[in-house]
Amino acid sequence: MVKDGLVPHNTTEENPLDSEGLYPDPGRLLREDPIDLNILKRLVGQSILSVDQFDKALVLEVCKFAALLESTEIAANHPLDGKIIITAFFEASTRTRLSFESAVLRLDGKIISIPTGMVTGVAKGESLSDIGEMFNAYGDLVVIRHTETTAVEEISRNLRLPMINAGNGSGEHPTQALADWFAILKWKPRLKEDRVSEAHQIHLGILGTPGSMRAVNSFLRTTLLFRSGIRRITIVSEMADPLGPELEGLLRESGIAFQLSNDINEVLSDLDVIYMNSIAFLGDSYKTLDSRYKLNADSNLKPDAVVLHPLARLDELDPTLDGTHHNLYFTQAHGAVFIRQALLISILNRFDRLPQKEIPLNTGN
Amino acid sequence: MVKDGLVPHNTTEENPLDSEGLYPDPGRLLREDPIDLNILKRLVGQSILSVDQFDKALVLEVCKFAALLESTEIAANHPLDGKIIITAFFEASTRTRLSFESAVLRLDGKIISIPTGMVTGVAKGESLSDIGEMFNAYGDLVVIRHTETTAVEEISRNLRLPMINAGNGSGEHPTQALADWFAILKWKPRLKEDRVSEAHQIHLGILGTPGSMRAVNSFLRTTLLFRSGIRRITIVSEMADPLGPELEGLLRESGIAFQLSNDINEVLSDLDVIYMNSIAFLGDSYKTLDSRYKLNADSNLKPDAVVLHPLARLDELDPTLDGTHHNLYFTQAHGAVFIRQALLISILNRFDRLPQKEIPLNTGN
Amino acid sequence: MVKDGLVPHNTTEENPLDSEGLYPDPGRLLREDPIDLNILKRLVGQSILSVDQFDKALVLEVCKFAALLESTEIAANHPLDGKIIITAFFEASTRTRLSFESAVLRLDGKIISIPTGMVTGVAKGESLSDIGEMFNAYGDLVVIRHTETTAVEEISRNLRLPMINAGNGSGEHPTQALADWFAILKWKPRLKEDRVSEAHQIHLGILGTPGSMRAVNSFLRTTLLFRSGIRRITIVSEMADPLGPELEGLLRESGIAFQLSNDINEVLSDLDVIYMNSIAFLGDSYKTLDSRYKLNADSNLKPDAVVLHPLARLDELDPTLDGTHHNLYFTQAHGAVFIRQALLISILNRFDRLPQKEIPLNTGN
Repeated sequence: MVKDGLVPHNTTEENPLDSEGLYPDPGRLLREDPIDLNILKRLVGQSILSVDQFDKALVLEVCKFAALLESTEIAANHPLDGKIIITAFFEASTRTRLSFESAVLRLDGKIISIPTGMVTGVAKGESLSDIGEMFNAYGDLVVIRHTETTAVEEISRNLRLPMINAGNGSGEHPTQALADWFAILKWKPRLKEDRVSEAHQIHLGILGTPGSMRAVNSFLRTTLLFRSGIRRITIVSEMADPLGPELEGLLRESGIAFQLSNDINEVLSDLDVIYMNSIAFLGDSYKTLDSRYKLNADSNLKPDAVVLHPLARLDELDPTLDGTHHNLYFTQAHGAVFIRQALLISILNRFDRLPQKEIPLNTGN
Repeated sequence: MVKDGLVPHNTTEENPLDSEGLYPDPGRLLREDPIDLNILKRLVGQSILSVDQFDKALVLEVCKFAALLESTEIAANHPLDGKIIITAFFEASTRTRLSFESAVLRLDGKIISIPTGMVTGVAKGESLSDIGEMFNAYGDLVVIRHTETTAVEEISRNLRLPMINAGNGSGEHPTQALADWFAILKWKPRLKEDRVSEAHQIHLGILGTPGSMRAVNSFLRTTLLFRSGIRRITIVSEMADPLGPELEGLLRESGIAFQLSNDINEVLSDLDVIYMNSIAFLGDSYKTLDSRYKLNADSNLKPDAVVLHPLARLDELDPTLDGTHHNLYFTQAHGAVFIRQALLISILNRFDRLPQKEIPLNTGN
Repeated sequence: MVKDGLVPHNTTEENPLDSEGLYPDPGRLLREDPIDLNILKRLVGQSILSVDQFDKALVLEVCKFAALLESTEIAANHPLDGKIIITAFFEASTRTRLSFESAVLRLDGKIISIPTGMVTGVAKGESLSDIGEMFNAYGDLVVIRHTETTAVEEISRNLRLPMINAGNGSGEHPTQALADWFAILKWKPRLKEDRVSEAHQIHLGILGTPGSMRAVNSFLRTTLLFRSGIRRITIVSEMADPLGPELEGLLRESGIAFQLSNDINEVLSDLDVIYMNSIAFLGDSYKTLDSRYKLNADSNLKPDAVVLHPLARLDELDPTLDGTHHNLYFTQAHGAVFIRQALLISILNRFDRLPQKEIPLNTGN
């Protein structure tokens, strides 16, 4: 069943992208392997603050559920009917806010929004825990983004609603990391296996500073769950210690070979996946990375390598790559809407609003 | 009938607060005394600009209707279906805006919003009466907040829709005052009686400047309707004349004993209700009150005294009081959503969309 | 059939305005001349970037459809059910944004909004073509306003959704021009005829600079389609060359007599329609026009002349004219909501959601 207004996928071996320039969703995955509702139900009523709450099984079920939502028309079932989602973007971000709001509206939920921290009581000095208490009366779930890493914890103090962390300072951005892996699994579904032969394992390059940038931090932590598919990780950063002690410890513990570099070109020809990030979020300021951290259509990419980028991008990722099959970042951005839908339905326990007949759900014994 | 997702009230005599830390709603009140629809219908098509439009009977019916809405699930009846509410916050206020928007969405109304005066034609010099004319074409009811006291009158000039004043400069904030008294009546329902024995009358302390602060102005004016339950009022303010001639005249006329003070500690041990307000709104600037106007868990409060605060708060009201039964301010904030729903349904005359069987309405002869 | 909450039109010959001070809609027009759906269907899936996409037949059908929507209750048919409209106002404009949002909500569509360019990735340097790609995943149609004339083209590069240009720099504002002519046709329906006798032709005065102001640019271009009803056009501007070469060429080609003036009073007593515009949009700055470009109730207007103004206005158009039958600008502003509804239903091909019985549609052969 194809969604209203979307063109069916008709990819060929020569051109893995569909007519919209996106990698197709893993319908195969679903048919072979029904969604396990008992695993997804671990999310009911939960807040999503960190990827550390996820094991591999839960990431996989969320991705499979997102694939289902991407390929099935469920709006007529009004899965979030009567639910109010509060999008509280104390740090303004149109892309992430609109992605969540589109996810909610397509499921027939409702939205009240703080589009920027400039217009709130916070600007007058109100505490985040008071704002959390306020939210209890106004909605059913809070999506929060904030410039301060500690904000998520502070707002939790009085909040009795589930909350989704949509980026907290230099902390985490867990729904982005799930969207990242949703894209990777669309590109190469076999990476979900517990045993991946060396020939199919990937060398992953990360441009950025996982120790201080939330998107790459959450991405790297999630990647460790898929260690069976990873041959090597190279962190490309201008920082002397881009990982910090905690992440370095986790990487060592994982047994994945890893190395540091300060020039993407040193390793590019060996990379299967390149995760880029334009913006070094350091405390309250942003800085742009220099030319040793840029890619374009002339870069020495492996023929079947793919590039991820959480967007927005600046000049580190040239639009000349957009029309090529290296472009996994548009697939990644599009899939984020469905990852967020999967989380919202799971947290708010609205599995009963799905079209039961068409959906291969394994509801257990 | 209990609302979806809310825990039923199970308060005990030792702990008057329910499991969410709120005072229970006066279900008793409703069962003894059905809502009088003929009184509520005085609001049909009306604008709410000032508490002076309300007599005691109308305040009581609005509070009873709010109690009903708080304790009954009515969303499935879509009471505001097809109605567009314009939330025009020329003075930004997240708390009040979200409270109204949540009230509207839970009744299945729709919202178009001006979240801040910075983004409107006003910023280019457009008159408020032209903006009022514009609103006629776009919605069914306007909620307005503005930094200027005269704004409500100016926008009325061409406006043919009903309007709710959500705070106009140093003028009024009538829906806040109704929410304030809704909380007080939940705490001590007998204050609604026309005769209250001296033993049950309250000594009310007001920290603030009713003559120039809209929330305490509207609260004090509404309080005069409940004079039978008031033994004494003490205004605690650093201003020499916190009332101004009009309010002082009204207080004298009411026959309620009143006094001024510039230190809460002089009277605290005798106060039954303390109404606080952090922010002195004086013209265009805010100032914070000093330490003689602060409360915390160590303050010399009467054992059964309660504290009200329209929020947001700064340091005048310490979070150490949050977990105590002195905390009536969270109850006050939560109830505001239902007071606003009661007003919206009444003004827009959508009484016919309530679940008729479950609701004790007295529709008269 | 009269819309819920609106007073029926009961105009008299002495007072052409209805009880709301508006010119009545041309119900006559509709009854004589059913809407031609085959013409409207040329808009299906199309973007509206310029009035140059319209011929006279299409403008007329859009106006007739708008008249139908203004006079018929269709909300219960949920014509935009399931559709998400993105209102992307990189240049803030409350009036136009709320007009579109009201249009969408009354048709039961949903909205995600960028109310100001200050809160987007653009502020961090994101390209408009990336933002267009983002929109593909989030909605079904984009309404865009931007300070830059080139923005519409840039965002089109990756956008696969239809887009409506709601004002691009000094370029165009096509939906405003359609609303302008909708108002004129309500005032004098015979101007739609291909032959208009000289006695009924109008002398049109335009205060403004069509060569650099988008609203008057789009209005003038649309006016050329109705040349049969135009006796003469006078452009009143303080600029030496208010038209620029392209518009001057088009005017010459049209065969309509035209002239320039720098004082409205030179021609006022001969003008049938005066199109005003307060704000000279020149690059990034606004300037106010001086006193030779102002009208009030004492101005020497022809008895049956009408004034148009896209609003917001400053002091060039005095409120003393509001209560007179010269005031066509309120009719113009109100009608804009229905013009936008007509476009949205046409572009999104939701003709099948109209109440078929009551609507005189000519579905062709």
